[in-house]
Amino acid sequence: MSELRRDPIGGRWVIVDTDKPYKPQDFEYQPQTYHPGTCPFCYGNESMTPPEIECIREQGTASNTPGWQVRVVSNKFPALQIEGDLDRRGLGIYDMSNGLGAHEVLIETPYHQKDISDLLNHEVENFLSMYCRRANDLVKDKRFKYLMFFRNYGSAAGASLEHAHTQVVALPMVPKNVAEEIIGAKSYFDYRERCIFCDIIRQEMQEQERIVLENKFFLSFCPFVSRFPFEIWIMPKKHSGYFRTMGDDEIRLLAEILKETIAKVKNIFPNLSYNYILHVAPINGDTDVEYYHWHIEFMPKLTQVAGFEWGTGFYIDPITPERAAKYLNNK
Amino acid sequence: MSELRRDPIGGRWVIVDTDKPYKPQDFEYQPQTYHPGTCPFCYGNESMTPPEIECIREQGTASNTPGWQVRVVSNKFPALQIEGDLDRRGLGIYDMSNGLGAHEVLIETPYHQKDISDLLNHEVENFLSMYCRRANDLVKDKRFKYLMFFRNYGSAAGASLEHAHTQVVALPMVPKNVAEEIIGAKSYFDYRERCIFCDIIRQEMQEQERIVLENKFFLSFCPFVSRFPFEIWIMPKKHSGYFRTMGDDEIRLLAEILKETIAKVKNIFPNLSYNYILHVAPINGDTDVEYYHWHIEFMPKLTQVAGFEWGTGFYIDPITPERAAKYLNNK
Repeated sequence: MSELRRDPIGGRWVIVDTDKPYKPQDFEYQPQTYHPGTCPFCYGNESMTPPEIECIREQGTASNTPGWQVRVVSNKFPALQIEGDLDRRGLGIYDMSNGLGAHEVLIETPYHQKDISDLLNHEVENFLSMYCRRANDLVKDKRFKYLMFFRNYGSAAGASLEHAHTQVVALPMVPKNVAEEIIGAKSYFDYRERCIFCDIIRQEMQEQERIVLENKFFLSFCPFVSRFPFEIWIMPKKHSGYFRTMGDDEIRLLAEILKETIAKVKNIFPNLSYNYILHVAPINGDTDVEYYHWHIEFMPKLTQVAGFEWGTGFYIDPITPERAAKYLNNK
Repeated sequence: MSELRRDPIGGRWVIVDTDKPYKPQDFEYQPQTYHPGTCPFCYGNESMTPPEIECIREQGTASNTPGWQVRVVSNKFPALQIEGDLDRRGLGIYDMSNGLGAHEVLIETPYHQKDISDLLNHEVENFLSMYCRRANDLVKDKRFKYLMFFRNYGSAAGASLEHAHTQVVALPMVPKNVAEEIIGAKSYFDYRERCIFCDIIRQEMQEQERIVLENKFFLSFCPFVSRFPFEIWIMPKKHSGYFRTMGDDEIRLLAEILKETIAKVKNIFPNLSYNYILHVAPINGDTDVEYYHWHIEFMPKLTQVAGFEWGTGFYIDPITPERAAKYLNNK
């Protein structure tokens, strides 16, 4: 009989198929393929993007020319725009407002065909430190309530450009999915006076069954309530609501575990398409929050979301996270 | 500047792109294609499925043989199983239970390549009346809290079999997405003493801008807060939380509007993949509910859901529902 597991943060149920022992080779997936051509994110094509907002580049090289390692530009087709006011208003029973926000693209590498697992450790560190720089800059704009960093890699994951990049969106309201996580985490904290994510880390380290990798500062594991096959969360062991306050040592070990985790997944599924999302607490001035714990949710595209998931919010995971962790660790 | 619109039921925000005037031909989509072969849902192959639960068939023909128009069977690979108990239990901070439930397949037509828009009106009526029969049967099992009827049509919509069918799932708990809708609708009702869906119908009929089709009992329209391009809701004008109590006249006009709505969409996007979901109130004995109003949500697969939507629960709709309704009405 299958098992129902309940996510203790948002209260979402997942149907974990414990009956059919799925193997990695049972998943059909659409691999990321490359169509070389004129890519606006490639080295030498700097003039094809909006001007640089921030950049890591060799000393003496000019903005918007070669010489860079990491580049941040405005999204050429932004979902939200930075000028203007929110102007919330009603229309009969409906509410609406202007599409205020920021939408940036963080180009992680000059190389078209390199994913994170193909980069050198210090290259991963570079773009992760740029995550912090952009977050620390955007947090100053008092119109924004939430910063969302996410990555769509491969066409099956909805990437419109194949060159590796992270998108950064600053939102004028706390989005629904985040608000739900916050409500769940806060009510756990209010009741137990402990962070639910710290408790998850404790339980995962005790059970050891779902761990993918571990270092001094981070843990990478297949969550007990995985929605997707080979879903992985990367979580700092030290409590903090925000990644933007990480020190250099932490960035270094995050780069290491992120790169190695993706390499482990790609060892099983070469050229996999995937999404990852940085889950952080809403902007709260300079104050950290006790009840929320930032982390990365890595979601491989191996199955399709269909009517059942859309209607219920239930997910069906055809492979248990315990088995997925075993495969990732070649056990 | 784009527009942010807030769904008054669940509180979800959608970014509606009002800047770029997208046309239907701007959407690339993967059409439903047919690979003829041995299909367990085809006429003559009745022995390839689990035995019939209910059937509409010619008098004098035997169960599990040809002679049928609509057939309901158990899902051969059920996500949930009908035998046993829920047995809710804890595991450290996690909750879990057995995968109790029902998972049926309702085969709408004996013809492999026919979608709803290709059927005769009375054939659509036949399978819709079977929706009611199955719901009225499953509702008697006191272990179930919710009945979900949904349809994945085409491989891009996650259909594993191309022969048209509806899936029926009976769940031992009210799923998260439904619970959220209920909370929103109920708090609107508590405050205004009116059903929010009745108010939506009133506003849509007044504004006329987003209506696709209308008959005596039903309205089909592109909702103001569409998450997807060409999303359409079909809603009964008369208040009720459940479709299972529909009379023959209502079933007849639902068949008409459902078929014509899908035909209008397919007129623009031939062989489109799509999902539709029947949203109903949770099982509540024999009592109807005042605050919830059943309806069908039709979601064409024209765009991909990626990291942004996963992380935020925000959606980005590149075409306004007002424009979509115009295209559907050839204006």
